[in-house]
Amino acid sequence: MSKPVMLSDPGFCPHSLNKYASLMATGNGYLGIRASHEEGYTQQTRGMYLAGLYHRAGKGEINELVNLPDVIGVDIQLNGDIFSLLSGTIESWRRELDVSCGVLTRTLVWRAPGGARFAIESRRFASVTQLPLVAMQLSITPLDAAATVSVSTGIDATQTNHGRQHLDETQVRVFGQHLLQGIYSTQDGRSDISVSTWCRVQGEVQSCFTAKERRLLQHNTAQVAQGERLTLEKFTWIEWTSSRNLSLDTWARQGRRALENCALQGYEALLTESAANWGDWWQRCRVEVASHDNADQRALDFALYHLRSMTPAHDERSSIGAKGMTGEGYKGHVFWDTEVFLLPFHLFTEPEVARNLLRYRWHNLPGAREKARRNGWHGALFPWESARSGEEETPEYAAINIRTGLRQKVASALAEHHLVADIAWAVVAYWQATGDDQFMAREGLTLLQETARFWMSRATDVNGRLEIHDVIGPDEYTEHVNNNAFTNYMAHYNVAQALRFSRRFGCTDEAFLHRAAHFLAHLWLPEAGEDGVLPQDDTFLSKPVIDLTTYKAKAGKQTILLDYSRAEVNEMQILKQADVVMLTYMLPERFSTDVCLRNLNFYEPRTIHDSSLSKSIHGIVSARCGDAEQGYRFWREGTLIDLGDDPHSCDDGIHAAATGAIWLGAIQGFAGLSVREGELHLNPALPDAWRQLTFPLRWQGSELRISLSRQEARISSTRPVTLWLNGTALTVNGEQTCSLADFILPTNGTATTQKEGE
Amino acid sequence: MSKPVMLSDPGFCPHSLNKYASLMATGNGYLGIRASHEEGYTQQTRGMYLAGLYHRAGKGEINELVNLPDVIGVDIQLNGDIFSLLSGTIESWRRELDVSCGVLTRTLVWRAPGGARFAIESRRFASVTQLPLVAMQLSITPLDAAATVSVSTGIDATQTNHGRQHLDETQVRVFGQHLLQGIYSTQDGRSDISVSTWCRVQGEVQSCFTAKERRLLQHNTAQVAQGERLTLEKFTWIEWTSSRNLSLDTWARQGRRALENCALQGYEALLTESAANWGDWWQRCRVEVASHDNADQRALDFALYHLRSMTPAHDERSSIGAKGMTGEGYKGHVFWDTEVFLLPFHLFTEPEVARNLLRYRWHNLPGAREKARRNGWHGALFPWESARSGEEETPEYAAINIRTGLRQKVASALAEHHLVADIAWAVVAYWQATGDDQFMAREGLTLLQETARFWMSRATDVNGRLEIHDVIGPDEYTEHVNNNAFTNYMAHYNVAQALRFSRRFGCTDEAFLHRAAHFLAHLWLPEAGEDGVLPQDDTFLSKPVIDLTTYKAKAGKQTILLDYSRAEVNEMQILKQADVVMLTYMLPERFSTDVCLRNLNFYEPRTIHDSSLSKSIHGIVSARCGDAEQGYRFWREGTLIDLGDDPHSCDDGIHAAATGAIWLGAIQGFAGLSVREGELHLNPALPDAWRQLTFPLRWQGSELRISLSRQEARISSTRPVTLWLNGTALTVNGEQTCSLADFILPTNGTATTQKEGE
Repeated sequence: MSKPVMLSDPGFCPHSLNKYASLMATGNGYLGIRASHEEGYTQQTRGMYLAGLYHRAGKGEINELVNLPDVIGVDIQLNGDIFSLLSGTIESWRRELDVSCGVLTRTLVWRAPGGARFAIESRRFASVTQLPLVAMQLSITPLDAAATVSVSTGIDATQTNHGRQHLDETQVRVFGQHLLQGIYSTQDGRSDISVSTWCRVQGEVQSCFTAKERRLLQHNTAQVAQGERLTLEKFTWIEWTSSRNLSLDTWARQGRRALENCALQGYEALLTESAANWGDWWQRCRVEVASHDNADQRALDFALYHLRSMTPAHDERSSIGAKGMTGEGYKGHVFWDTEVFLLPFHLFTEPEVARNLLRYRWHNLPGAREKARRNGWHGALFPWESARSGEEETPEYAAINIRTGLRQKVASALAEHHLVADIAWAVVAYWQATGDDQFMAREGLTLLQETARFWMSRATDVNGRLEIHDVIGPDEYTEHVNNNAFTNYMAHYNVAQALRFSRRFGCTDEAFLHRAAHFLAHLWLPEAGEDGVLPQDDTFLSKPVIDLTTYKAKAGKQTILLDYSRAEVNEMQILKQADVVMLTYMLPERFSTDVCLRNLNFYEPRTIHDSSLSKSIHGIVSARCGDAEQGYRFWREGTLIDLGDDPHSCDDGIHAAATGAIWLGAIQGFAGLSVREGELHLNPALPDAWRQLTFPLRWQGSELRISLSRQEARISSTRPVTLWLNGTALTVNGEQTCSLADFILPTNGTATTQKEGE
Repeated sequence: MSKPVMLSDPGFCPHSLNKYASLMATGNGYLGIRASHEEGYTQQTRGMYLAGLYHRAGKGEINELVNLPDVIGVDIQLNGDIFSLLSGTIESWRRELDVSCGVLTRTLVWRAPGGARFAIESRRFASVTQLPLVAMQLSITPLDAAATVSVSTGIDATQTNHGRQHLDETQVRVFGQHLLQGIYSTQDGRSDISVSTWCRVQGEVQSCFTAKERRLLQHNTAQVAQGERLTLEKFTWIEWTSSRNLSLDTWARQGRRALENCALQGYEALLTESAANWGDWWQRCRVEVASHDNADQRALDFALYHLRSMTPAHDERSSIGAKGMTGEGYKGHVFWDTEVFLLPFHLFTEPEVARNLLRYRWHNLPGAREKARRNGWHGALFPWESARSGEEETPEYAAINIRTGLRQKVASALAEHHLVADIAWAVVAYWQATGDDQFMAREGLTLLQETARFWMSRATDVNGRLEIHDVIGPDEYTEHVNNNAFTNYMAHYNVAQALRFSRRFGCTDEAFLHRAAHFLAHLWLPEAGEDGVLPQDDTFLSKPVIDLTTYKAKAGKQTILLDYSRAEVNEMQILKQADVVMLTYMLPERFSTDVCLRNLNFYEPRTIHDSSLSKSIHGIVSARCGDAEQGYRFWREGTLIDLGDDPHSCDDGIHAAATGAIWLGAIQGFAGLSVREGELHLNPALPDAWRQLTFPLRWQGSELRISLSRQEARISSTRPVTLWLNGTALTVNGEQTCSLADFILPTNGTATTQKEGE
């Protein structure tokens, strides 16, 4: 395996501080830390977050991921001058995130305004073997003459979420010469947070401590000879609990003991341990591509790094926020993005992580049942935005219209119900890939039945036909419509799978089985017209079309809303993302390639791609339809959502779903992986730029390794496994190389494709 | 009158940003705004405060002056580069606070890192005629070539008190093209705050508005030709209420109307109006000194500027915080500083302001009675730290000892009871200077009687002698002592005056009159020994003496506490400030010059002057004892508390009492003003450096103007008034010039001095 590609920050720029703070964030699924510089800049938003630690900061506010006291900041003074890259001159610069081991490094030479040069280096990582641990080193070398060097650092609890303070300071302490500890509680008193940090500057140094205005700091000053290096080592141990059963003192002491053990190990040993774990993980998960353009491998490595860093694999009571833990966008809430865009990666590489993500939803069934009940429905209506408790976290009203003073109700929480079926879809996908009957018999079946019950109560009988009224599909530019194709088909799938697994596991609730069968027999599934186009909803095709060229050129910026009101957009054929294309992606066995292609061609020109979830799915469907080049264009554009040139593309965090989609595009698009009728299919369609695509795959207990070129497919498996290569069944045991010339896809698409509406 | 001396910031320096932000703060008694730069710096603490608006931000926190949403910040971009003085080069610089009219100005030429020069000018003031109004102008001129200039500004509610958030955002709105309004409430729901701001950039400009993450902003971008000036005008109207009887909408609308009227007037007209009011005020209040050193006049002008700016003359429910409204030190709380160090200036220039300050205490009698009652005493025990409600605001525990984890009880609130008598002292001083029987018969007498009742219950009968046990005098390095001289004498004065005025106003509460007389007859007043030294308390003189030279050299920094614990300091003759010297200052008629001098000479070597209240009083007593040169040295050192070289001397606000003491030193020290037996005395003692001292004085309805040189005293009065010049009675009517050779002070001090213990 080649080394994963470094991510680099090309140079210091006040405008892009927050972009790189998100892109290069360190994290381990337990915590996430924005890649802020040690020294402060007013434009720079610092951030450290713990998976699952949400709090509401006041009246009219929303439960959000708490921005914790900062431990990254270091005030550096060189001969009494405050170090800032805004002053002086940067003579050399390298800033990199080594995604192979999660280490962020900055190495620079700075000429102070007075003329003296200093080499300043820092590196840090969040340990993947000791999750509460963040380790950092900062070293300063006067290059031209001896200098007085001061570094002040510690725990800075003045940190807020853009002015919203969540924490009360309970206690701040200093132990011995190096250990500082702050104990905080959320203002609602429900959670305790302990931040312990061990700071040591090697050598002859004068140190003192201060605790003032929510800052607990160690101040160090030393005379450093020319060419000599002053090094600060700092280890931080961060824990939280909302169900503490120890006394606060005992709990705090345990954190200090753990930290002291880390300090005894030292930076290098801690790094070696964590880096080895990362190395194993990359071995198990990495996707390698031989492309004309190195950016493709970089995008994949970037995506996988974040897919690991953002995922709270350790805790099934937490899930993945829409920005991971790289920023405060969407308040750290969990959307359908998790099940549809992020879960597949885990499912096919570490299925136990996918199981945890589904158990998160299972734990949160009470909130989902309550939401359904409150709205007069049965079963489970999961919250559109979810945090720790599983209650609906979507603000009732959107941000105020500063012109009218009115607040519009947020429609998603009221009507964007497809996520219920998306969760069911993920449950089935999990079972298909793992055969985990134990999960399916308990959590899985409960989720399927409760979501199915929701749909059965949600449908409306219109002259004997069941319809689903007043919903929003994934396309959020079209609100409150009836019989949204995506929703109806997914609801049908949801109930069908609930019925199937209910029977399989011997469910004796005859009333449920009967109602499910009735629902499936009567639910209206929108039908394609003669042109093969499936109507997005009852009224969509009757709406006028406008030229979207200028808006598509600025995809992702929602510029259409500068020219038209939401109400006006709603009455035109304008899509944020295309529901029917998404549907053909979700249920590939349900639609022929021809139908997929016709709908792609019809809907794409009507789609602005203002959602970060849009292009990647169009890319996969394009590739599945045989147009790998169009698929590649969409995929590349998808990689630029975060990695592109816009200096503010991800100020408030990376687009988690878009990183998931980078993996999806490679595996489901260009390797053509799909699961149809429970069988694993590969229909490779490498774009011209790619010579080879290699990736691991976990499938029903086997560990596969698949390497695809334009000519051949090399597949190895740890156990015998049957898969379908371009529609032809193939049993792999050990390693097998197939010439793709022997596996030519039938012209009508995949051999096992079921007819639409079947 | 010459023009008051400008205060200037000698140059941009990240280390001194907060010093000058405090020194050059603008304010009008209603609001205070720190002199932050428009552009942001991480070291810079912005602050805007409203007199009386306190709130407690969470568990374990303290009621504090709320740092309001910022309206001063402007994000400036020049050809896309963020303007910061840390980058580029400052080619010229002038930053001044014109205390004559309260206008803060910065004029600079900045060379951007790319080489192009820009002239950037800004000016701002808080109106003294329309108190809720802050007006500012910012102009930018590209000097070398046309440039794209962007300015973004508005209302930034991410502002906190060092991370403590007090406000919920209720509503943010934009009206028309220029008006932005944010409505906030304190998190306890008790107060509403409305911040309305009108922003306009003249000329061809592209503008838009954003409301995100507690920031409501107007963004303006324009192409500006070389040599052309782009000007932003911004008017802000800030109101608050804790007893709103209008609907929120109506109240908010009224604020907008008021603001729109200001915008119609325009910056120059608003400034003219406010500056004229300042001009009148300086005419009425200014102290002019002809000194060898201009710094003396500057110190006086600085002090008077702040004495006006910090005083909520408009609102008798508010008083003056220990840092005015220039920073967050002492949480904006009110101490005895107000009555003893600040009230005299107002009393002798605008006595109605002094009356308001006393009415503040009168309004807050319920809290003071409750504090006395809770502690088992009678009458009124005013809180050591006071805010809006008059309840005790002193934190029960001091900041945690970060080493032991223990929090020490704050002793001041428990035992520093002399402030009760200090308030009574100020009531009498007010009546003496004004003869305001109406006030004295009602508020004054109530205050005198209630404070007297406290003392009568506070004393302990020890074998027929009344003693006052377990107190702290002004010297906070000596805690929990018995019969503190300052406290006992001041308590005696308090009860004596209560008795005197009770009789004068026909009080028929015989029990009170009887108990007061008994108290006065039996209260132990510590007596001077043969050396004339009055013991500070029962045990002080028996404690060991140590050499304080090194600590005195760092007066104000409390370095003694680095070497000794508080408990150890308590057991030595170590004074933070000298109680007995303070006592001779407070009750000059009570002690002969000889006694004053002996005690000054005894206690001064034992005094570190770690309190900012210390040196100025030593200076006044020195001058009164005839040593004007020593008085001058102390006075000068007192002026340096804020104005000295230490770049962090007043980061969290100026020392309000020390500014009051600059006036006290000039008037009570060098002009030798004192009130003895209700008579006005002048014993001029100009230091060698001063040729002349001129000041206005209000005395019992007369407006006097006094000009003193070494040779003569020129006194004018609007009405006939009798005063004592160097112990000789003099009646002034109109203008009168006296040769001081004709008014020689008797050698035993002042002619009317009563004997000690009389």
